[in-house]
Amino acid sequence: MQIQFGVLGYGFMGHIHTDMIKGLEGAKVVAICDNDPTKLADAPKDIVKYTDMDDLFADENVNTVLVSISNHVHKEAVIKAARAGKHILCEKPAAMSVKEFDEMIEVVKECGVNFSVHQQRRWDKDFRISKEVYDKQMVGDVFTIQSKLYGFNGNMHDWHIYPEFGGGMLYDWGVHLIDQMLWMVKGKIKTVYADLRNVINENVDDYFKIILKFEHNITAEIELGTYFLTNKEKWFEKHWFIGGNKGSMYVDGFEPVGQIVRTSQLLENVPGKTTMTAAGPTRSFGPPPEGRIIVEELPDVNVQHSMYFDNFIKAMNGKEDFIVTIEEVRRVLRLMEAVRESAKTGRSVDFE
Amino acid sequence: MQIQFGVLGYGFMGHIHTDMIKGLEGAKVVAICDNDPTKLADAPKDIVKYTDMDDLFADENVNTVLVSISNHVHKEAVIKAARAGKHILCEKPAAMSVKEFDEMIEVVKECGVNFSVHQQRRWDKDFRISKEVYDKQMVGDVFTIQSKLYGFNGNMHDWHIYPEFGGGMLYDWGVHLIDQMLWMVKGKIKTVYADLRNVINENVDDYFKIILKFEHNITAEIELGTYFLTNKEKWFEKHWFIGGNKGSMYVDGFEPVGQIVRTSQLLENVPGKTTMTAAGPTRSFGPPPEGRIIVEELPDVNVQHSMYFDNFIKAMNGKEDFIVTIEEVRRVLRLMEAVRESAKTGRSVDFE
Repeated sequence: MQIQFGVLGYGFMGHIHTDMIKGLEGAKVVAICDNDPTKLADAPKDIVKYTDMDDLFADENVNTVLVSISNHVHKEAVIKAARAGKHILCEKPAAMSVKEFDEMIEVVKECGVNFSVHQQRRWDKDFRISKEVYDKQMVGDVFTIQSKLYGFNGNMHDWHIYPEFGGGMLYDWGVHLIDQMLWMVKGKIKTVYADLRNVINENVDDYFKIILKFEHNITAEIELGTYFLTNKEKWFEKHWFIGGNKGSMYVDGFEPVGQIVRTSQLLENVPGKTTMTAAGPTRSFGPPPEGRIIVEELPDVNVQHSMYFDNFIKAMNGKEDFIVTIEEVRRVLRLMEAVRESAKTGRSVDFE
Repeated sequence: MQIQFGVLGYGFMGHIHTDMIKGLEGAKVVAICDNDPTKLADAPKDIVKYTDMDDLFADENVNTVLVSISNHVHKEAVIKAARAGKHILCEKPAAMSVKEFDEMIEVVKECGVNFSVHQQRRWDKDFRISKEVYDKQMVGDVFTIQSKLYGFNGNMHDWHIYPEFGGGMLYDWGVHLIDQMLWMVKGKIKTVYADLRNVINENVDDYFKIILKFEHNITAEIELGTYFLTNKEKWFEKHWFIGGNKGSMYVDGFEPVGQIVRTSQLLENVPGKTTMTAAGPTRSFGPPPEGRIIVEELPDVNVQHSMYFDNFIKAMNGKEDFIVTIEEVRRVLRLMEAVRESAKTGRSVDFE
């Protein structure tokens, strides 16, 4: 089938999606809807425009709705689109809560339409390099995986500053960073421990730290701050660190720079060998001797965000499974609720 | 009083202490004891040597015992020294457990001798700079304090590889890093969540991550790995990060390099402003515009490890209080037990 998208919401992501779909085979945008008519001013001329979502859902040329409105109306939009018989591609987070999501999914299943969520950051290069290192056990048995993202803006944009619209960084980026981690590390999560704060923003979270203890003894850590500052190069981007018993890997930046790092030898028990550091003697820490640290190139990966749509289009035509599944999306939402609970109580939450 | 030290244990720290005391006024080493006579070969010629700790405790010239033997015999040594009427300066960790410590303290109090523990890293420059930034609220209301230390050796030294001698990094360095954090951040700790692992060492821990949620909403994090690798400059040293709502501070290295970092402005709500990163568009992350990041010098501090002894000597003469107190040492030991419990159960531990 030719996918004929009706784009619901022509804000930031509506624009991005419309541009993206132009370059894809097997899909095109046939209608755009935004309840703010001024936002439609720069929409492509040859496309039907609506200001009421019901009109978009009634459009027979539209077979698939791309939901890119603010988070608090995803539920209404998805349920109405499904009842109109449209397939659905929804922006993340799919819903504000597991409860909302379950209501949406019930209708989606009842109506027999396809449903996927735009977790396109599974195709981020920094993530895929890290995943490759993890999957191929390039640093041996992994004990820690750390995913971090720092910003300098402090405040958030547009409706993201309003809690009632589903604002805040946990919804906005947390859903990506968690989705990446859960897609990479298979296995159950035993406990979640989290911090979630409003550092600069008055009403929505703009800092979080999430610790996940997986079965098989891997601990994953996700940290994001919109006001988390250094003057180091590439600081205000994505960072990964994977520690294993055969080496470590680090990746900095959306256009990733990093290495796999090992040592030429491990210490053997040598009494009396001291490294004199500026803070006194230590035998365990201090500058490594020449040649001790060995670096290897990161694996190469070839990914781009359009691959999300490539899979979506193929899956809509029955040629592949959807890579982003309903079960996965629901698990991420459940985890976000555990994060909020842990942050609120100050205690770890038993998860699975 | 002139402090006449009997040094018990002439290994790595016994040598360091003997050298240190040479340069101090009001204190000298008058005897050295090690149960391995070969270790005494390079001891200063003019000092009495013993191979049995009971002989050291019987020496009337010794009024203070400096315990620098392995951790599992601290209890025996401290109790015997106290019963012999000697004052005591004990290496860290003072004891293997709170239970051991309480037994030691009971005898120390009964015998009316002074007792302090060598937590000299309260005088580390990197720590004191961070403490100054924290104490003077130079980055506003603090939400996160991160203390990290990474190594490349993998294995540990000497008796530190044996659990029965009190080996492992939590005992060795953890006790310092925790002590620094608890001395800096006043207030109760609500919960502790920790990871404690044997990555390279077969029998003792060589990686830990400890999260402490303090009342007043500060979260502290301590991470140490003996095999935690990058090829970045100054990586294999101490790292601090303090995040507040008026800026951040970072410090790298035992001879610290770092900055206080702020921004010239915060984002105001500007719809449609996009930063196009290598991984697609984001309005929240990406390189800062020229001039947005502002740096300030770190405060200057003037500290050295001998200041621990300066305080010890003055306190022994009634001129100051001991800066390292029995109550503080006990709280750190209690916290280390909570760390072990959390790591074992995978859950957070309610602490205070």
